[in-house]
Amino acid sequence: MSNAASFKCSELAEVIGAEVKGDGNTEITSIASIDTATCGCITFISSVKYLDALQSTCASAVVLAPAMENIIASTAEFTRLVMDNPYLGYAKLTRLWAVHESNNQSPPIHHTASVAETAVVADDVSIGANAIVDAEALLGKGAVIGAGAYIGHGTIVGEGTTIHPNATILHGCVIGNDCEIHSGAVIGADGFGFAPGEQGWEKIYQLGTVTIGDRVSVGACTTIDRGALENTVISDGVILDNHIQVAHNVTIGKNTAIAGCTGIAGSTTIGAGCRIGGAVSIVGHISICDNVLITANSFVNRSVVEPGSYSSGFPLEPSSQWRKNAVRLHRLDELSRQVGKLKS
Amino acid sequence: MSNAASFKCSELAEVIGAEVKGDGNTEITSIASIDTATCGCITFISSVKYLDALQSTCASAVVLAPAMENIIASTAEFTRLVMDNPYLGYAKLTRLWAVHESNNQSPPIHHTASVAETAVVADDVSIGANAIVDAEALLGKGAVIGAGAYIGHGTIVGEGTTIHPNATILHGCVIGNDCEIHSGAVIGADGFGFAPGEQGWEKIYQLGTVTIGDRVSVGACTTIDRGALENTVISDGVILDNHIQVAHNVTIGKNTAIAGCTGIAGSTTIGAGCRIGGAVSIVGHISICDNVLITANSFVNRSVVEPGSYSSGFPLEPSSQWRKNAVRLHRLDELSRQVGKLKS
Amino acid sequence: MSNAASFKCSELAEVIGAEVKGDGNTEITSIASIDTATCGCITFISSVKYLDALQSTCASAVVLAPAMENIIASTAEFTRLVMDNPYLGYAKLTRLWAVHESNNQSPPIHHTASVAETAVVADDVSIGANAIVDAEALLGKGAVIGAGAYIGHGTIVGEGTTIHPNATILHGCVIGNDCEIHSGAVIGADGFGFAPGEQGWEKIYQLGTVTIGDRVSVGACTTIDRGALENTVISDGVILDNHIQVAHNVTIGKNTAIAGCTGIAGSTTIGAGCRIGGAVSIVGHISICDNVLITANSFVNRSVVEPGSYSSGFPLEPSSQWRKNAVRLHRLDELSRQVGKLKS
Repeated sequence: MSNAASFKCSELAEVIGAEVKGDGNTEITSIASIDTATCGCITFISSVKYLDALQSTCASAVVLAPAMENIIASTAEFTRLVMDNPYLGYAKLTRLWAVHESNNQSPPIHHTASVAETAVVADDVSIGANAIVDAEALLGKGAVIGAGAYIGHGTIVGEGTTIHPNATILHGCVIGNDCEIHSGAVIGADGFGFAPGEQGWEKIYQLGTVTIGDRVSVGACTTIDRGALENTVISDGVILDNHIQVAHNVTIGKNTAIAGCTGIAGSTTIGAGCRIGGAVSIVGHISICDNVLITANSFVNRSVVEPGSYSSGFPLEPSSQWRKNAVRLHRLDELSRQVGKLKS
Repeated sequence: MSNAASFKCSELAEVIGAEVKGDGNTEITSIASIDTATCGCITFISSVKYLDALQSTCASAVVLAPAMENIIASTAEFTRLVMDNPYLGYAKLTRLWAVHESNNQSPPIHHTASVAETAVVADDVSIGANAIVDAEALLGKGAVIGAGAYIGHGTIVGEGTTIHPNATILHGCVIGNDCEIHSGAVIGADGFGFAPGEQGWEKIYQLGTVTIGDRVSVGACTTIDRGALENTVISDGVILDNHIQVAHNVTIGKNTAIAGCTGIAGSTTIGAGCRIGGAVSIVGHISICDNVLITANSFVNRSVVEPGSYSSGFPLEPSSQWRKNAVRLHRLDELSRQVGKLKS
Repeated sequence: MSNAASFKCSELAEVIGAEVKGDGNTEITSIASIDTATCGCITFISSVKYLDALQSTCASAVVLAPAMENIIASTAEFTRLVMDNPYLGYAKLTRLWAVHESNNQSPPIHHTASVAETAVVADDVSIGANAIVDAEALLGKGAVIGAGAYIGHGTIVGEGTTIHPNATILHGCVIGNDCEIHSGAVIGADGFGFAPGEQGWEKIYQLGTVTIGDRVSVGACTTIDRGALENTVISDGVILDNHIQVAHNVTIGKNTAIAGCTGIAGSTTIGAGCRIGGAVSIVGHISICDNVLITANSFVNRSVVEPGSYSSGFPLEPSSQWRKNAVRLHRLDELSRQVGKLKS
């Protein structure tokens, strides 16, 4: 399905802001990793640990840093695209082949899509088969609504934003420009709010909504609940991986990145520029300040007020050893007291 | 999208069973938190820690407990709705504005919905665009099937139950009355049953189903698998948050509440009135008795036979400290032995 | 909805490769667990711990091992189907009643399904209501596409494979023969690839795809992301439970089984024949060799190079005790040093 897209190295260098060393006319038809690149491929190297791979690569061109270029320039048979941040260069190159792959698209609005009469659909919007756009929804210019996706009553989808197939955006949400919401994601479901009542749990209707800034990415099967009275807020540039739970009234600051399977309980505030690993659990009603790194599988049971790296978690060991250590863990307080007595 | 709904304080007091102090004719158009409430808003206070906020609130009315009323009665410029459980009062009030928001609904059965001829649809049922109701399904009076939702062959949806957009209820399930199943939830997928066979895993077809009682709430992307031979059972009044996994043949007792990202492995029984935090993992084939509280991120690796509060988990610390402690954890058994020797 | 299917014990014995002891003409209409089986039921026993239950069962037939048969032969009033692996026999029997349940199916291609003109649909394919098959997709012989499911551009679904309702398979994926993809699963969403750029995160377009072998089972709401440059690979016979996250460029070896809520970060390789418990978190860029068992709730923070059983995790205890032990855990390194000094 991928027709060959072909570019000259000099064209690619311009796209990514690199300087060409060697033959700028070399034709590139594909992008590949350094181990698997063949003739016609461009690749990149972002760490000295791949230096051996670089010296034996079959790639026709490589994006690399100046220091690396100096090492291999005399022997290299491939064209070099030199820039300070080759990984960023690689990121920018991927778009060229991705755009090419999805060029032969379906008509703008599929005849099986269900678009309410009162919905407002801007120019250049594409709506897939069996997608549903409910009353008073507003789709910005160039928005793409995937097949089977649902856009709720009064929800706003910003310009250039893509809602992938079978994603669900419920009523009254606001999604900014240039966002991506992946398949299976659910934005704006009711927050988990109940009060103990006479006959069991009494539902607290969730009257807030979800507001999502620009350039936000939401992964597959990630859920972002609507706020109880105020809104749940995802700031510009936030990137969320798959299977993340964002509970009601959570706020996530600008450009924060969160890896898969992480859960954030209600009313917690996460700062800007944070990086949160996978499978982290974050309790509710706490604050995490800007520029905090939390490593995978941590249990964040308290606020974090200083930037830095934080962790928790019991690392892997053979089960036989774990069983012994885990038993001792139950008596750690007692052990500590015994040591205290021995010292005195 | 939210037109103003307006109520007199005396009307609101009647809805929630509170006594009015001050002007019962005060008009209320909205409900808000104590910090953000403005003129025309009603708010509530459920803890003394918000007493300062109460004294400076701009709200026109506040739901509060008698003791709190005594403290602020002499100076308060807002109407007071006095009751023993203000949080429950707040819960009951939210419904008034929620109902108002969804008043201008689409026609009962959308013309793009696919309803099998042998399905039985009671009065006042609403079925959204592109929803699918399979053969012999039964939709009780007042049931709401959201856009894109799937109701499987022979499945029963009780009276007044709402299935939100893009939720999936597979064949033969029984959902009680006044339930809510949120978007992306999957009820009745096959339990994870396989026997080791000659050529790999042999599937054990899952012949049971899922039965869900009345007033049950199932969160977005939560999955409840069908039983192997008998059924998976969710009792009346159970509330499940998002991203919960309920494996085959699990039983959950009445009014138990489970927070997001918790997983329950097969054939485990959870009692009534339990509260289970988020990101808890519960192994299979165990029992948890009634009225057990399990805090967030715990690993429930054994049965719990006494009511009470249970926990586990390594709390957060700076990564540098964690690395040192985690290494020592691997040798905790050895450390304990050394201390034992020192004592003797 | 389940019409009675009826089989003679001798027929059932042939299906599962067992020897009949007692009356081979006994009619069996249902399969049930040993505790609930009544007249007309077949059941099985795979462990001596159910011996009491066996002796009081009302079942008309039991699948059991030769040793067990010897114990109860003299008193048993039920027909015995004797074989070395009764659990496997049970697995094979379940198919008989499952097939029966879904016999009265809808027409092959529902009139509301949206199938692109350029899609290739083999014989005996069934496509449910409102399902979408995009351009150039290929559906192999006997494939079943559930209601509301999405099959992306150029994706291949193998022979005899079932895609359950509301599952999403994005463009360019390859699913083998005789697979099952459950509802809510998302195959081929973009991997979580971003490079830090001048204005925030720069998306790395994911140019690889997902390839899935034969006889693979993918659970409800499980996500398998497409690779960045190369593919994400799921080998033959792999079984994945619900809510599993498989990140980009992960490889999972033949017949490996993974329980629910487990997350596997990017570029990690898991060997063949592994068994990974529920709620396990596995970091990226590591390798797990063949035949590794990882118990539930473990944190796999390093490669595993030896077959065997591995664990981690803090087991459950009363919250009051946990609070004390958890505090001590923060000072475990210090405690270990103190003991070291005391020893010397």
